[in-house]
Amino acid sequence: MQEMRKHMLACHDQKKIDCFLQQMHVGFLGLSDSDGPYVVPVNFIWNGGKIYFHGAEAGRKAKIMSGGAPACFTVCEEQAIMTDPVPAHTSTAYMSVMLFGRVQPIDDLHERTEVMQQMLNKYVPGYFRRPLASSHVEKYRSKLGSRTVVYCLSPDVLTAKENPLDQKRRFISGQQAGKGRNE
Amino acid sequence: MQEMRKHMLACHDQKKIDCFLQQMHVGFLGLSDSDGPYVVPVNFIWNGGKIYFHGAEAGRKAKIMSGGAPACFTVCEEQAIMTDPVPAHTSTAYMSVMLFGRVQPIDDLHERTEVMQQMLNKYVPGYFRRPLASSHVEKYRSKLGSRTVVYCLSPDVLTAKENPLDQKRRFISGQQAGKGRNE
Repeated sequence: MQEMRKHMLACHDQKKIDCFLQQMHVGFLGLSDSDGPYVVPVNFIWNGGKIYFHGAEAGRKAKIMSGGAPACFTVCEEQAIMTDPVPAHTSTAYMSVMLFGRVQPIDDLHERTEVMQQMLNKYVPGYFRRPLASSHVEKYRSKLGSRTVVYCLSPDVLTAKENPLDQKRRFISGQQAGKGRNE
Repeated sequence: MQEMRKHMLACHDQKKIDCFLQQMHVGFLGLSDSDGPYVVPVNFIWNGGKIYFHGAEAGRKAKIMSGGAPACFTVCEEQAIMTDPVPAHTSTAYMSVMLFGRVQPIDDLHERTEVMQQMLNKYVPGYFRRPLASSHVEKYRSKLGSRTVVYCLSPDVLTAKENPLDQKRRFISGQQAGKGRNE
């Protein structure tokens, strides 16, 4: 893996990275096959240093991942646009995490049930009064009728970047640049 | 390109797709090299049926794209989580667009200036009182000191999916499932 170019933006705060991955709702899973790269948005959980998500058993994504495919999983939050009198210095306040590793389907029913329970805990916290039954996971089908496969991405490399928000530079709708040197 | 599996969720409303791509702030650019897939979040504009974005002239992304690399560009907005008494039917209301094609750097200074002007129009509308000068674009450098390259992705294939929000099913924090058949 190449060294991250933007050293200045690197984030090494593991607690912050964990918190970010636990809270964010959508991750972008990058795969590749003979047709080229393929990026699909998925809901996910971050647990024990691994990314878990689920998908249909049919389709291009499932086909690629059935054999333990190399993947990149990227999560990014844009917090604000930051202005600058120099147009080239207009920038974005954001946090992003990229994880690289192989994706494997999970066979074990107990593990799959645990993952699906954690998905419910994250996305609809407190909604279900009873824990998820493994029998439900076993016959788990989406509204589209497809069986569901649970995947695990175990990252070999994780990189995080952050461009913190400078409140003074936050762009607010209707705002105009002052009479700076480039105005 | 394989046919989209979830026919039921396909969106063919070009006006809606255009509007979505014009408004969304972050796209996820998927590339691939010998190290595997690589997904990077970028700001972008959608203009004339093409995606434009910029990036530093150094780094892994730039290296891959210098030769007209195959790419996938994915934009997704999660609008809400939708509950269901059946845990497996918990779902997400979203809209997503995937574009597949090759990415090329743009050489022409006039075209690059036009793209950067449209980027400013989108991200900091009305902020700058004067149009962007091509001389500024020519020497355009980010705060990190890197020269900027403008890229164009001309899609061969575009697919859009939508799972519309059903307000009655929208998950609200603190909400609990009723005494349905799976409760």
